[in-house]
Amino acid sequence: MDTVAIPTIGPTDVLVRVKAASICGTDLHIYGWDRWSQGRIKPPLTLGHEFCGTVERMGDEVTAVKPGDFVSAEMHVNCGHCRQCRLGQAHICQNLRIIGIDQDGAFADFVRIPASNVIKLDPDIPEHYGAILDPLGNAVHTAFSGAISGCNLAVTGCGPIGLFAIGVAKAAGAARVLASDISPYRLELARKMKADLVLDASRGDFVERAMEATGGVGLDGVLEMSGNPAAVRDGLAALRSGGRLSLLGLPKEPFELDWNRLVIFKGVTVHGIIGRRMYETWYQMHNLLSSGRLDIRPAITHVMPMEKIDEAIALLGAGKAGKVVLVPWGEEA
Amino acid sequence: MDTVAIPTIGPTDVLVRVKAASICGTDLHIYGWDRWSQGRIKPPLTLGHEFCGTVERMGDEVTAVKPGDFVSAEMHVNCGHCRQCRLGQAHICQNLRIIGIDQDGAFADFVRIPASNVIKLDPDIPEHYGAILDPLGNAVHTAFSGAISGCNLAVTGCGPIGLFAIGVAKAAGAARVLASDISPYRLELARKMKADLVLDASRGDFVERAMEATGGVGLDGVLEMSGNPAAVRDGLAALRSGGRLSLLGLPKEPFELDWNRLVIFKGVTVHGIIGRRMYETWYQMHNLLSSGRLDIRPAITHVMPMEKIDEAIALLGAGKAGKVVLVPWGEEA
Amino acid sequence: MDTVAIPTIGPTDVLVRVKAASICGTDLHIYGWDRWSQGRIKPPLTLGHEFCGTVERMGDEVTAVKPGDFVSAEMHVNCGHCRQCRLGQAHICQNLRIIGIDQDGAFADFVRIPASNVIKLDPDIPEHYGAILDPLGNAVHTAFSGAISGCNLAVTGCGPIGLFAIGVAKAAGAARVLASDISPYRLELARKMKADLVLDASRGDFVERAMEATGGVGLDGVLEMSGNPAAVRDGLAALRSGGRLSLLGLPKEPFELDWNRLVIFKGVTVHGIIGRRMYETWYQMHNLLSSGRLDIRPAITHVMPMEKIDEAIALLGAGKAGKVVLVPWGEEA
Amino acid sequence: MDTVAIPTIGPTDVLVRVKAASICGTDLHIYGWDRWSQGRIKPPLTLGHEFCGTVERMGDEVTAVKPGDFVSAEMHVNCGHCRQCRLGQAHICQNLRIIGIDQDGAFADFVRIPASNVIKLDPDIPEHYGAILDPLGNAVHTAFSGAISGCNLAVTGCGPIGLFAIGVAKAAGAARVLASDISPYRLELARKMKADLVLDASRGDFVERAMEATGGVGLDGVLEMSGNPAAVRDGLAALRSGGRLSLLGLPKEPFELDWNRLVIFKGVTVHGIIGRRMYETWYQMHNLLSSGRLDIRPAITHVMPMEKIDEAIALLGAGKAGKVVLVPWGEEA
Repeated sequence: MDTVAIPTIGPTDVLVRVKAASICGTDLHIYGWDRWSQGRIKPPLTLGHEFCGTVERMGDEVTAVKPGDFVSAEMHVNCGHCRQCRLGQAHICQNLRIIGIDQDGAFADFVRIPASNVIKLDPDIPEHYGAILDPLGNAVHTAFSGAISGCNLAVTGCGPIGLFAIGVAKAAGAARVLASDISPYRLELARKMKADLVLDASRGDFVERAMEATGGVGLDGVLEMSGNPAAVRDGLAALRSGGRLSLLGLPKEPFELDWNRLVIFKGVTVHGIIGRRMYETWYQMHNLLSSGRLDIRPAITHVMPMEKIDEAIALLGAGKAGKVVLVPWGEEA
Repeated sequence: MDTVAIPTIGPTDVLVRVKAASICGTDLHIYGWDRWSQGRIKPPLTLGHEFCGTVERMGDEVTAVKPGDFVSAEMHVNCGHCRQCRLGQAHICQNLRIIGIDQDGAFADFVRIPASNVIKLDPDIPEHYGAILDPLGNAVHTAFSGAISGCNLAVTGCGPIGLFAIGVAKAAGAARVLASDISPYRLELARKMKADLVLDASRGDFVERAMEATGGVGLDGVLEMSGNPAAVRDGLAALRSGGRLSLLGLPKEPFELDWNRLVIFKGVTVHGIIGRRMYETWYQMHNLLSSGRLDIRPAITHVMPMEKIDEAIALLGAGKAGKVVLVPWGEEA
Repeated sequence: MDTVAIPTIGPTDVLVRVKAASICGTDLHIYGWDRWSQGRIKPPLTLGHEFCGTVERMGDEVTAVKPGDFVSAEMHVNCGHCRQCRLGQAHICQNLRIIGIDQDGAFADFVRIPASNVIKLDPDIPEHYGAILDPLGNAVHTAFSGAISGCNLAVTGCGPIGLFAIGVAKAAGAARVLASDISPYRLELARKMKADLVLDASRGDFVERAMEATGGVGLDGVLEMSGNPAAVRDGLAALRSGGRLSLLGLPKEPFELDWNRLVIFKGVTVHGIIGRRMYETWYQMHNLLSSGRLDIRPAITHVMPMEKIDEAIALLGAGKAGKVVLVPWGEEA
Repeated sequence: MDTVAIPTIGPTDVLVRVKAASICGTDLHIYGWDRWSQGRIKPPLTLGHEFCGTVERMGDEVTAVKPGDFVSAEMHVNCGHCRQCRLGQAHICQNLRIIGIDQDGAFADFVRIPASNVIKLDPDIPEHYGAILDPLGNAVHTAFSGAISGCNLAVTGCGPIGLFAIGVAKAAGAARVLASDISPYRLELARKMKADLVLDASRGDFVERAMEATGGVGLDGVLEMSGNPAAVRDGLAALRSGGRLSLLGLPKEPFELDWNRLVIFKGVTVHGIIGRRMYETWYQMHNLLSSGRLDIRPAITHVMPMEKIDEAIALLGAGKAGKVVLVPWGEEA
């Protein structure tokens, strides 16, 4: 914890006063200063890429927001001129920078954001929700990368994004949503998120149970949130031929697959998912929230003041929390 | 009402004992013996193309069902070898025949159906639902012809298919569903189907209200069920640029459109919709029903014994009914 | 013709020295000072929205191009913050402005363009091609709005965009491309663009001939470039059930359609097309040109120096030209 | 070689007199009587699933063909009632049987085919082409599983299906088609199929050369025909972010992938491909052939009489042939 200067802003930037922020798995990696962090992070750096707040002031050329507006932001900043940016795939921009990773982020009183990345929020969206739109957007992006309406889907891995994905899939019209994890704590949260069937992945009967739950047909889609090779293989085995696997969870290392049996003979489609579509995902998410269809409260297990960040990180490390939202110093939940 | 012989079946046919049937708008046209009916119908004919029942017996080559199975059927019979059939678009087969229009239908104790058209139903789907899958399928087909999840949609025209479409769009993940009609009776039913906003089309403020309900953006999609030219024009005007209009309602006659303003400058997509996709629509519908997501009870306003068919038709003609389901002689609802 | 000051540029603008420009149908309307022009154009204004040139200088924040680069530009300038812009549909931006219509354009030695709208061209693309990318992009956008590969398509209306569409559809993999118009001059150009079958629309046998050419099946798609109601109706009648009609041509006034027979019963999809997708269309076009697949020379019938603009307009008005490219004062083709 | 009885046909079958057949890699496996063959093949069996011929006679209920018609056939026979069949994905039917593998095939004078699987061919399609529609269909299915028009694609593996895929991708509108293999013989055939760039995969510079050929952007799609893990990895590495990999080649065993770097961070889509879409693929192929757009002659390196089947198999085993077509006993090419 340190005192830093209020960021200066350019003509197309917005300065946002942070009202709530939340802790991402990536932040835990940096907190643990692992190899990835040592290679990417250039301290001193203000972390934090999940947040919401109010507009404090804007650069001269900014017209889309005004002081006092309740906002969040897409923290992936794209270059605007690479092929992907030009094709409407800015989320896979070749020159992507992340606020809170590659430049100062939101674990502070103020954060500077390019106007194009600021998302104005409906005032009727609760502040706590505003702080978790980045990971909720990951869940929306993953779910919306294939058919949802009327489908039988599974979410493998019930960390915060997986929990959100359960809610998103149901709000977006899935017929049934199965959820799997190995942690009883997380399975309980999955139940609270109203998964239709909650499966303990450590029992080794995921495929069998999923086939049973779908009348022997198999799943229409799997939203993979764990990065666990066994979950990927089980997910593919439980898909019906012609189904889709959307991969968001990052495996720790390369792993092997029986491509013939699990992908080719089944005519499966596999989607690699990263970030949020800019800005289609944001509008889909916003509509689901502002219409009241999507209730993510059970996934937000803790709201704590910023000074308790060490405690928050300990809870997350111990697997004793869903999503943790941080509010400014001294505030209570 | 007459006594007819039990149909004889071929090796690939199924004989179904009718448990419930329902009356389609087309049946009303035939009942009124209008010009279209005089050209198409060759009496004597058993009408009825919306029904469910149990398998009585099957031809030698039929393996997919067995006696006693609870079934409904796709009553559009496709040729199997035209281009559309071969491309997976059997619903627009060039040689389509309709059971209950072009050959004997289901307003009888027994009906003969080709095995490929028989749909086995989950025993937990209520019988009354089984009888209305044909028009419910129209609603599913219309809704699923474009994006639904997280979208703001409108249903214009709240006859039975429109009422179903409200329920389908919500179950399939629409953020908000607006509904319009000119009949107070139907608007009341739309409210019971849980439309988010119910608009009296006779007030002339549909476009204004739809823009307001979408924060000035416009609708993502319109499901047109009325065939009314003003509804089509208002629907297009209330669409956001890039939205979609799915047309199921049949206009009484050709009508004019300001194509530049309503279609071209807005980059709109218009889908003509007929029948049900064979058999994608049936599985989408089945999943929504069997998972309990879709509740269509408010749209089924009357369940009456077959002998009261005149009364049923009178109610429908007077606009005093939603969907009417007929059960066998002497049975009470 | 007048002497105007060289435009001043802002930090995100590019100043381009015009090397070639071409005349759009819109320019003819303005030249004729019709009702639309009187309502939209605020003189004095430099017209011209089809051009190419070299970068003269750039604003301080521009990094994507450098002086001397061979460029063209998307002349539709989008706002960047409306729903459509945010959803990757900038071509139907709610606040679209057009350079050469709403602000000074390219019929001059220099034109100012926002950097985001500048398109850097392969040096191996001929200059004449660079000047017609705007209308060629219209053709690409129209063709690419539905399936092309292996399809039987028709282009109705063989003005410059229609002629381009013939070439685009063939280069992009259509099996067969039919073309229709009423002008013998244009039909001859369609033949030179290698349409597989060229039909004189004044003979009234378009539908019959198209059915014949497709073995009785009907067309997979129609690219409508004429705005003529009869062409739209014939196009729909000649579509196979399940086909698509992409409408770019602007009808002069509202017109009537038999929706049941032509759209609904056939399960047809109708796309309204405007502008070019920003910037997917540009890359598709660029790839087709730079790979040498697309040859549009026959459609460019005249290359004339700027001082002969009156002659050029007379030729276009008389229907005695395909596309006319203007080169700077005193240059010969 | 043996004398077998002419197959008897049922009411919905067609008896076809074989005019030409071709040898599939699967046939080579069976000829070598490898482990897979020992598990699947129940001798005595007539092999052969790539062929064309003329209708000899039909069952009573068959109306779509008549004696003398020139036909080929989809040899994957689907059940018609599983979920995939009902969803229009019959190529991944859960109960698929293959003629020539699971029942008597086409290396004979006559073969029995269900009428629904018979494909009537344009008389202007050459007989040799008729015999290779099965593998050509694999190539069409693979290419058409993602965007083609205006795209830069690569085909990895230039066996017969890979060679066909080069021709298909170009005919279907790809901007550029790269091809790679390790066999100089096959690379020479790739050149004859008009690949824009032919790469020797043994040099290890596939990714570098593909990036170079696409101006540093990467490929839009890879059609993987080799089953080689290195080709899959290189293909993914050479894809642009957001590209697609379509996998038809069968790897010999499970293999490892760096999912994060190659799939997830790049937002790539991977398609498993098997068989041919029934019957969309057949029509796409038919249109490309009958319109004259697709020339596959260079890939058909040998036409031999049936009695030289051993010689044909030796050539194939030695990698000294592209596609080999067999014609009846005593006929010369």
